Amino acid sequence: PRTAVVLAAGLGTRMGGKPKGLVKVAGREILYRTMTLLKRNGVERFVVVTNERYGPLYRDFIGRHGFNAELVINPEPEKGNGHSLHLARGRVSGRFVLVMSDHVYSEAFVEKAIGGDGLIADRKPKWVEIGEATKVRVRDGRIDSIGKNLKGWDAVDTGFFVLDEGIFEITAVLEREKNGDYSLSEVIERARVPVTFVDGLGWTDVDTPNDLKRARKMLVFTSVKGTGDGFISRHLNRKISTRISYLLVERVTPNQMTVFTFALGILSALLTLVSLPLAGILYQLSSILDGVDGELARAQLRTSKLGGYTDSILDRYVDGTFLALLAYATLSGSLWYFMALLALLGSVMVSYSTERFKAAFGRDAYVEVPVLRKLPGKRDERIFLTMLFLLYPVEPSIKGLFLLLALLTNLRVALTLYFISKKVSQPKTI
Amino acid sequence: PRTAVVLAAGLGTRMGGKPKGLVKVAGREILYRTMTLLKRNGVERFVVVTNERYGPLYRDFIGRHGFNAELVINPEPEKGNGHSLHLARGRVSGRFVLVMSDHVYSEAFVEKAIGGDGLIADRKPKWVEIGEATKVRVRDGRIDSIGKNLKGWDAVDTGFFVLDEGIFEITAVLEREKNGDYSLSEVIERARVPVTFVDGLGWTDVDTPNDLKRARKMLVFTSVKGTGDGFISRHLNRKISTRISYLLVERVTPNQMTVFTFALGILSALLTLVSLPLAGILYQLSSILDGVDGELARAQLRTSKLGGYTDSILDRYVDGTFLALLAYATLSGSLWYFMALLALLGSVMVSYSTERFKAAFGRDAYVEVPVLRKLPGKRDERIFLTMLFLLYPVEPSIKGLFLLLALLTNLRVALTLYFISKKVSQPKTI
Ligand SMILES: [Mg+2]
Ligand SMILES: [Mg+2]
Repeated sequence: PRTAVVLAAGLGTRMGGKPKGLVKVAGREILYRTMTLLKRNGVERFVVVTNERYGPLYRDFIGRHGFNAELVINPEPEKGNGHSLHLARGRVSGRFVLVMSDHVYSEAFVEKAIGGDGLIADRKPKWVEIGEATKVRVRDGRIDSIGKNLKGWDAVDTGFFVLDEGIFEITAVLEREKNGDYSLSEVIERARVPVTFVDGLGWTDVDTPNDLKRARKMLVFTSVKGTGDGFISRHLNRKISTRISYLLVERVTPNQMTVFTFALGILSALLTLVSLPLAGILYQLSSILDGVDGELARAQLRTSKLGGYTDSILDRYVDGTFLALLAYATLSGSLWYFMALLALLGSVMVSYSTERFKAAFGRDAYVEVPVLRKLPGKRDERIFLTMLFLLYPVEPSIKGLFLLLALLTNLRVALTLYFISKKVSQPKTI
Repeated sequence: PRTAVVLAAGLGTRMGGKPKGLVKVAGREILYRTMTLLKRNGVERFVVVTNERYGPLYRDFIGRHGFNAELVINPEPEKGNGHSLHLARGRVSGRFVLVMSDHVYSEAFVEKAIGGDGLIADRKPKWVEIGEATKVRVRDGRIDSIGKNLKGWDAVDTGFFVLDEGIFEITAVLEREKNGDYSLSEVIERARVPVTFVDGLGWTDVDTPNDLKRARKMLVFTSVKGTGDGFISRHLNRKISTRISYLLVERVTPNQMTVFTFALGILSALLTLVSLPLAGILYQLSSILDGVDGELARAQLRTSKLGGYTDSILDRYVDGTFLALLAYATLSGSLWYFMALLALLGSVMVSYSTERFKAAFGRDAYVEVPVLRKLPGKRDERIFLTMLFLLYPVEPSIKGLFLLLALLTNLRVALTLYFISKKVSQPKTI
């Protein structure tokens, strides 16, 4: 669908009188999120139906963000929201998306939902208070009935629809029958629109300040990218970093976080000159925080290629500086410095070997060659290992660490080269 | 154009009776090159006009390479080649490419020529014996006259045409007038086809064994990629590597060369334990040879992403191993080892910072941010510097080398990050 209709005429009563679509979650207005995600998925034009009071606010919002949107005023917002949909008649043609202004959707949800048909329903709603949700019963792939207090329901209404202009024939009938006062649910039920299930992805609606918290949590917890995460990342770092992101998402930008994490990493490297256990612990802490900038960026819809690029360069410098200063502070003897040089080379080459793949083939090495995910030696694992070895820093443990890193990383690169060659050499692959 | 007609009916007399289109240059049949390059530029179907004697050979060639080509037999090849073109009538429609089977074209030439109209002519032929060439005189953008012994000519006929099926009306007239015996030049002249100039790019025709050498030279010398080449590469390494490639191009594959160069690089690193000047000289030699695999690959039409990927990983390992072993063999004292660690980190990061850019943005950093080409610190420059410092290896010169490398490389990475941020932050760039 190239067009989307947004219903934003409802008079919010539990959110301090501010239009709910303009309430910010994770630093962005709810409607900014929805419209931006729809745009990314091919929607070019918006019709926003609101009321007389909110009109100027939405007009300002649309202008500020430069959305290609037309504002329609519903002079009777106190009537059911079916009438708001009816007012969009004649302004859309063919298939269009219909969304509520007070629903917060994740990237993954919109990507999937926009390919659906009719009412998008969720059989495994994860971020919704079931008691408050609108339920639907489905028969033969179509709406059978819909309502808040439905018995024996199949799924929950996500507030996201992919409809056809034919729906306005139904609203026209209801306009006459109900004298303009009818709900969207009545339209949907009367039309017996198809139902598409999109289960378990991130979405929620916002009615109360408490819902806002849940929406924030949903955005942060669905913002983990994960490809390229090692064992420690999956089982430890991400569990902590998402909680930190949740606390920071309204006040810290991804770039600020990148700089802070870099500074912390360099500080941990300098600490090797003072206290090795402390240095190791701070290094692991910076490794946990390393996930936060990306999480903030995705939750705040502020991802940028330049941000990812900078972060990646700085990470290599944190690792290189840490190993170089650790070697300087602890080692003596040419052979062990040689080992440290190989460990540093291998550490950078682990990243180089996957990034260079992406540069050459334009695809993610971890997606194309999934076995790479299982190979040990990723950054999160190396840093955790380093911390462990530094907790009780005697000479053999430090030498052991450099030996282990030199072997682990360079072996990993050799295996990466081997698996990639194998995969690429297969007929009809890359 | 989606179709190409190949004239391959001429009975070669000076090449040992073998069809000239099937003679190999740089490991590939001339016609394999032309057809492959045309395919890469959108041509989907070929019509190959040959004679009865060569028919089976060309049929075998087409089958072996799986070209989508139709064979047309000219039973009277001793007549002028205009008749061969005429025989393709009814087998092509709309615009089509017409090429000679005995012309060798570079990638750059075909890319440019296929966008032209009419006869593609070269005002600055670089790889052609002018005495033997067919000249053209142009008036008002169209052929005025054409011939080997033309006085006052403007350009040389490249044997590459972009024509329209209307040309067959001309051949039909000439068939009657000349009883089927007329040359392509007569067709072209009679039709007064437009002329498009494509000047100074790589192409040549092959009539004698000596022409074959020239074609080989043309292919090797036009196969230098060059983006990312540093000062030493441009002014020294490439001048030598192309000559080596010329000698090897008929007998060595790019992969063999990659392995050999890698082995030589590792050998040079091991030599640091024996003789530093020798190690430095061998390292520089491996740096010169590092260009050869890529040159062979492009000249032999054997470029592969996996080849480039592998080469890039191995280059980093040669550099890392060289610096690690050089440090092991010469340094003492923690501070200088720390410097060596930074030099190694910086050396790998120079490549990482441009490759990671390509991974993120899908474009070549040297193309998007041309100032990077002028920054010193690229691999060819570092290796040449290393060789210089090792020629007379006293302690201060080796320490100076590591200090210089640590500063040069890491400063280069910092500047790369700076220039890339600046470029990307400009509105409407990447
Ligand atoms: Mg980071
Ligand atoms: Mg190489």
